[in-house]
Amino acid sequence: MNSLLTIHSLILIFESMKFSTEELIEGIRSGNKRLIAKAITLVESKKAEHRLQAEELLKKIMPFTGNSIRVGVTGVPGAGKSTFIENFGRLAIANDKKVAVLAIDPSSAINKGSILGDKTRMEELAKEENAFIRPSPSSGFLGGVANTTFETMLICEAAGYDYILIETVGVGQSEVLVADITDVFLFLKIIGGGDELQGIKRGIMEMVDVIFINKVDKENLQKAKNTRLELKRALDFIPPKEKDWKIPVLLGSALDNEGLTDVFDKINDFISLKKKTTRFEEVRTQQSEKRFEYWVQEYILSLMKKSNTVEEAYLQHKKNASTMVSNPSTEAKLFVEKFLSQDLSQ
Amino acid sequence: MNSLLTIHSLILIFESMKFSTEELIEGIRSGNKRLIAKAITLVESKKAEHRLQAEELLKKIMPFTGNSIRVGVTGVPGAGKSTFIENFGRLAIANDKKVAVLAIDPSSAINKGSILGDKTRMEELAKEENAFIRPSPSSGFLGGVANTTFETMLICEAAGYDYILIETVGVGQSEVLVADITDVFLFLKIIGGGDELQGIKRGIMEMVDVIFINKVDKENLQKAKNTRLELKRALDFIPPKEKDWKIPVLLGSALDNEGLTDVFDKINDFISLKKKTTRFEEVRTQQSEKRFEYWVQEYILSLMKKSNTVEEAYLQHKKNASTMVSNPSTEAKLFVEKFLSQDLSQ
Repeated sequence: MNSLLTIHSLILIFESMKFSTEELIEGIRSGNKRLIAKAITLVESKKAEHRLQAEELLKKIMPFTGNSIRVGVTGVPGAGKSTFIENFGRLAIANDKKVAVLAIDPSSAINKGSILGDKTRMEELAKEENAFIRPSPSSGFLGGVANTTFETMLICEAAGYDYILIETVGVGQSEVLVADITDVFLFLKIIGGGDELQGIKRGIMEMVDVIFINKVDKENLQKAKNTRLELKRALDFIPPKEKDWKIPVLLGSALDNEGLTDVFDKINDFISLKKKTTRFEEVRTQQSEKRFEYWVQEYILSLMKKSNTVEEAYLQHKKNASTMVSNPSTEAKLFVEKFLSQDLSQ
Repeated sequence: MNSLLTIHSLILIFESMKFSTEELIEGIRSGNKRLIAKAITLVESKKAEHRLQAEELLKKIMPFTGNSIRVGVTGVPGAGKSTFIENFGRLAIANDKKVAVLAIDPSSAINKGSILGDKTRMEELAKEENAFIRPSPSSGFLGGVANTTFETMLICEAAGYDYILIETVGVGQSEVLVADITDVFLFLKIIGGGDELQGIKRGIMEMVDVIFINKVDKENLQKAKNTRLELKRALDFIPPKEKDWKIPVLLGSALDNEGLTDVFDKINDFISLKKKTTRFEEVRTQQSEKRFEYWVQEYILSLMKKSNTVEEAYLQHKKNASTMVSNPSTEAKLFVEKFLSQDLSQ
């Protein structure tokens, strides 16, 4: 009897976790953070039934999306990204804006904060009524799972957040993904110990729209100015993503709230510049189309990985591709034939 | 009777163009340029029966491949790529090497030369017994056709060419493709009229292994040295592809055969450095695996494009993806379902 009751209450608890698409949408639209979080979990799920509901939800919230400024934030570990996002977020809120913070990879600081229980991270921002902080998905795309940060962002937009800050630590392909879904890309830099190469990932300088040299104080000010000069020289060799935009290199200290207003202004300047022409909408359309291509690949990839046989075949043919007795195109053909001979409708 | 004869002789001509895989391989191995060209045409063909023979050919020549140094050459139009390749190729031949020249995109100079009948391009190199020049495929991958430069390169390797020079003008994704199939990437630069940004494509500085500032003479020598200094400074912000390799910035004039030996030496130094460790083989294995992934996508894409219905659906869903009434993942799912419901075995 006791155990029956326990099971019954467990079922009740389980049932209470389920929400209809309409309930979720209502929750999102009214800014209910608990339901926003539920909706995000739904979108992150890989279960077929969840995917179905997620698609329905996304479809219905689309008319309410697109109105935020999407900001990518990157920098090496130690560049002070969490502190920057916390204080930058509070600055935006002080300017009557609502701020959502997402992380694209599980190794990023937000996640570390929540998983390792490091309560000092973004503690102040988390307290704000107009802030929503979402730790990154527990199983990141690095493990082969589709990245849903774009879809999470849509939910936050439908909930009325004005600035969506997406943090990345810059592992693997995460920067490219962030650049592919944001309006402006911010790079946090610290003054290297002479070695300016340190921690600048290949490709990062080509994606960036605004650079902020963080942790600048009286003592290292001259060094920071030198770094700025060198960075500007380097930028002369790298065309910016947008014509008519000279990538600003700003100095400051996120911890001491110094220089953050400059960053805020430059981000808004950059968005204004893009909105003056059709460029803003153009890029967003391109991003959606790219996202479509990403998902087509993801769905086909997930079909490939559905059966162990197909996945094993993929790895085996890939390995064969680099041997002297075969070649990439032959092995690819053999694999695709094997893949399509499977019953994919199951 | 007359017309029958004509048809008959046409058939004879057509038949004479066909070669067995064995004949082609023998031709390749003995360095018969006409048969090398035939084999390349076969590999470039999209016809199903040609693809079949191409796979057979590639499989059989694989044991004879892998021994060349694969050099990517890029630079803006006007940087003097054709002149550089011509005189660099002749220098390599003077050093007892055999040289093959390929182009990755139809708009490149080699192609322009052959199509537009501009006989001055690589005229001297073309005369050399130990040189093989292949104009780029007439329908390039920019039009959605699979790029077969990698496979063409394998044929040239099996024919015993020591240096394979792959030229690109740097349109679209061509540089990435070249970087993905070569051992060393060379960037030809000219001194900009003050505007150093001019013509440097986004991403190029991250791929390069050796830089050659071309068209340097007495008059602009100081300017060239300044450009070199600035380039070196910029490179401090961009980590090289290979550790322990400082990207050299060389000065010279391809037209006057000045500085070409330096380039030749630096390319060989770079290869030696990579071969000292397992790095050379490592990168080649990665490249083959990447090539496998490329072909898996290509084959699936070609299935998608086999039927007009599927191709139209792809474009329609892609378009829908950026509208407010739908979203990328929903549209991708709808498309993949439509795609898989087709009979793909035909």
